[in-house]
Amino acid sequence: MQELLIDLDRTANKSLQSQLREVLVSAILQGHLGPGEKLPSTRRLSTQLGISRNTSVLVYQGLTEDGYLRTNQRSGYFVNEAICEIGMPNHSAQPLAPVGSVEGLNWGDRIKRKPGAQANIRKPRDWQKLKYPFIYGQPDRALFPITDWRDCVYKAMGKQWLDDWSQDTLDNDDPLLIEQIRNRILPRRGILASEDEILVTLGSQQALYMVASLLVGERTAVVLEDPGYPDARNIFSLRTETVHYAGVDAGGLKLDDVPAETELVYTTPSHQLPTTVTMPIERRKALLAQAEADDFVVVEDDYELETNFTGKPVPALKSLDGGGRVIYLGSFSKTLFPGLRLGFVVASRELIAEMRALRRLMVRHPPNNNQRSTAFFLSLGYYDVFVRRLHRTYEQRWQVMGEGLARHVPHAKVTRGMGGSSYWMQFDDADRFDGPTLVQRAQRESVYVEPGDIYFARPHAPSCLRLGFSSIPTASIEPGLAILGQLLAKTG
Amino acid sequence: MQELLIDLDRTANKSLQSQLREVLVSAILQGHLGPGEKLPSTRRLSTQLGISRNTSVLVYQGLTEDGYLRTNQRSGYFVNEAICEIGMPNHSAQPLAPVGSVEGLNWGDRIKRKPGAQANIRKPRDWQKLKYPFIYGQPDRALFPITDWRDCVYKAMGKQWLDDWSQDTLDNDDPLLIEQIRNRILPRRGILASEDEILVTLGSQQALYMVASLLVGERTAVVLEDPGYPDARNIFSLRTETVHYAGVDAGGLKLDDVPAETELVYTTPSHQLPTTVTMPIERRKALLAQAEADDFVVVEDDYELETNFTGKPVPALKSLDGGGRVIYLGSFSKTLFPGLRLGFVVASRELIAEMRALRRLMVRHPPNNNQRSTAFFLSLGYYDVFVRRLHRTYEQRWQVMGEGLARHVPHAKVTRGMGGSSYWMQFDDADRFDGPTLVQRAQRESVYVEPGDIYFARPHAPSCLRLGFSSIPTASIEPGLAILGQLLAKTG
Repeated sequence: MQELLIDLDRTANKSLQSQLREVLVSAILQGHLGPGEKLPSTRRLSTQLGISRNTSVLVYQGLTEDGYLRTNQRSGYFVNEAICEIGMPNHSAQPLAPVGSVEGLNWGDRIKRKPGAQANIRKPRDWQKLKYPFIYGQPDRALFPITDWRDCVYKAMGKQWLDDWSQDTLDNDDPLLIEQIRNRILPRRGILASEDEILVTLGSQQALYMVASLLVGERTAVVLEDPGYPDARNIFSLRTETVHYAGVDAGGLKLDDVPAETELVYTTPSHQLPTTVTMPIERRKALLAQAEADDFVVVEDDYELETNFTGKPVPALKSLDGGGRVIYLGSFSKTLFPGLRLGFVVASRELIAEMRALRRLMVRHPPNNNQRSTAFFLSLGYYDVFVRRLHRTYEQRWQVMGEGLARHVPHAKVTRGMGGSSYWMQFDDADRFDGPTLVQRAQRESVYVEPGDIYFARPHAPSCLRLGFSSIPTASIEPGLAILGQLLAKTG
Repeated sequence: MQELLIDLDRTANKSLQSQLREVLVSAILQGHLGPGEKLPSTRRLSTQLGISRNTSVLVYQGLTEDGYLRTNQRSGYFVNEAICEIGMPNHSAQPLAPVGSVEGLNWGDRIKRKPGAQANIRKPRDWQKLKYPFIYGQPDRALFPITDWRDCVYKAMGKQWLDDWSQDTLDNDDPLLIEQIRNRILPRRGILASEDEILVTLGSQQALYMVASLLVGERTAVVLEDPGYPDARNIFSLRTETVHYAGVDAGGLKLDDVPAETELVYTTPSHQLPTTVTMPIERRKALLAQAEADDFVVVEDDYELETNFTGKPVPALKSLDGGGRVIYLGSFSKTLFPGLRLGFVVASRELIAEMRALRRLMVRHPPNNNQRSTAFFLSLGYYDVFVRRLHRTYEQRWQVMGEGLARHVPHAKVTRGMGGSSYWMQFDDADRFDGPTLVQRAQRESVYVEPGDIYFARPHAPSCLRLGFSSIPTASIEPGLAILGQLLAKTG
């Protein structure tokens, strides 16, 4: 034990007890502490490490219960010989002489599709250290009701639930979650759906990927918005050579840009991504009439379904869908948290059945424990409380942002829809700037803004910026925009 | 409040407090309790429902804290008018006149790929009610260390972790989990890998799907085992027309059945699925030499990487892979629980980079909270304790199964590998039986067995059965096999 260096980190996010346990377990499994070896007394260990006696005692007791240590009357703690049983790492399969040439093989020639080469939104890893993070789509730690969420996770882990969520469930999603989506979430968007018209997915991303896999062949004519969601472009262009781009005006997707041969339209009508404009009810009806006339289907991505705080929301396209042509994508990423990866799709039961089969091949199903925790979060009313709080905060930030932009960046054209969690700014040719340079300079001043280029499919896109306000504290908005205004004046 | 029927279910898996809260939240959100309406006193409510006063008080207090109720000095509790604010369901988007023809459209013509039509393993939903569930791949409630798991989930949900796991992480998996996979799991299989050669997936299913998406084009020659994993057949045959099947003998995949033009071989060398035979080291080396000579890659599905309990395990193919041709798939489904959906893949960094990009398009990433909980479960040593317990139990069951089968089903040919969690039985032509009829009859006697047909690609497959022992209590094995033996004697 003398040579076992234990270094506990008091600034770490782990408790000293967890750290000590980890170190001892590793030492035992890797053979640094041999079978039968005596451990230092809890008193000695505590003195040596400068930790409380109680911590050492609890760790030794826990390891004894779990079979790592054994205790021999009052003579102390010893490494349990039984730990070296079958299957432990020191009983591991030994690598033998490797077969095959060392040079390895050329994977580049073998990989048939290269998603790695696609352009994508990149976020700086350390944005949380910045003072003015106008970042999009990340949660605000201060707003998230961690206590309520924990309560639901605890409830979901009761022993009585083990049967429900620990096993494979391929044919049905968590019935509690489906019930909440049907009765609580969808009515707000005007949507009525039966159980077999809903499928739970790993975020709306998975729903979009599955729609493309099932409905798009090599020559299927697909229409996307430009500017629009880069990953939709990436997903559909991996499948088909025939992608058309429709422009976006103050009412969203321009219907004149949808050619007659179209088979599928992907749109973000409620908060057009990235411009945030809302498609008015008249254009929604016209889009559906056109879908009927030209026989295409519509994928409605309602990725911000809970951020409609500026007046009465326009109902979802899906709520107007008498012909069953709309595939509705919803997500919990913007309300709960994106790391949870939970969303859902509402579509005709025929398509949902095929999507369920495809989901089985792809991932089997979304993790059951997260489905159940989320179901509780909804059914116990925590979700609604949280959405109300988000609305109040977002509405305030939205106001402050609007005023601050008018003051500090008066040249930019700013579009508005029914709320959301970001602003989109477009600059005139006269005010053109070099996006990457601006972003770099801003970061040096502790400001994060997202350049707009990535959202455009067409070359020679206008200079644009996207400013999210889901993570930035309200009080930081005004000073952050002042810095941005100065930088733009210099760069423009 | 008079008309509000509250019906609490004392036998339900939810606490009375949770149930009461749910009922009240729903009543408020759906307008059955109007804004400003007075609620019955906690005393009256408790008497009416036959619950403790304390329960009512706690529910009212919780709802007041969350803004559903307000309390007016000592005059009681009222529905908070502010609850009817923006975004609540009673402020919902109203469905308008739907657009489009009522008949709907014919999805059958539009769906380009129909995974729903593929044959698949089906498990009865209510298998837990059967006395003798010889089911495969489901966890044993009695063995799972729910307390340890909960401890890890709690630790992962500490406020300090919120930054780490609540947000999107596209470029890197949880570093704690990667560290544990590298240092704790892979060495047991003889595998050394660097961080950028490992990707976390939603079970090995997702890894397999991604490998097929990236490496298999319409004419790529793929070799699968027959009998083999039905979902591998389903995944690859959605991609390519050129699937060859290789037979399986006592040493696993028959190398003579792998044609020279092969580009990819999918194999389950350590516990051949479903026969359970283990490929010996010599054949592993020969397979790799053949891969080198004929220039193909090998997908090694080590789906039961922790159930090697009969003597010293044969190292993974990947550990012998000098040429970087092996793509190794591992899973936590058979040790933790399948509902968690967590696995990993080890491959050359070039391929891992493309898989990461594809994973982003498919699902963005596996849920962060589950990655972190699992990392703790590993690092705190709970996982190793649990694997040891599984080994002891499985080894015992494996023995009892082996003896019971020899006694009660002596005609069946039974194959053996290095452990696993199932037996595979093949019957002679003379003992042929009708699978579905047998399974039905068995279920009537509270016995669940899986017919073997689904594992065969070739028509006219021999009569086979698969008997799992991960869920059946050890004491139930012998009587269960006795019933099965009698049924087979009658049916055969």
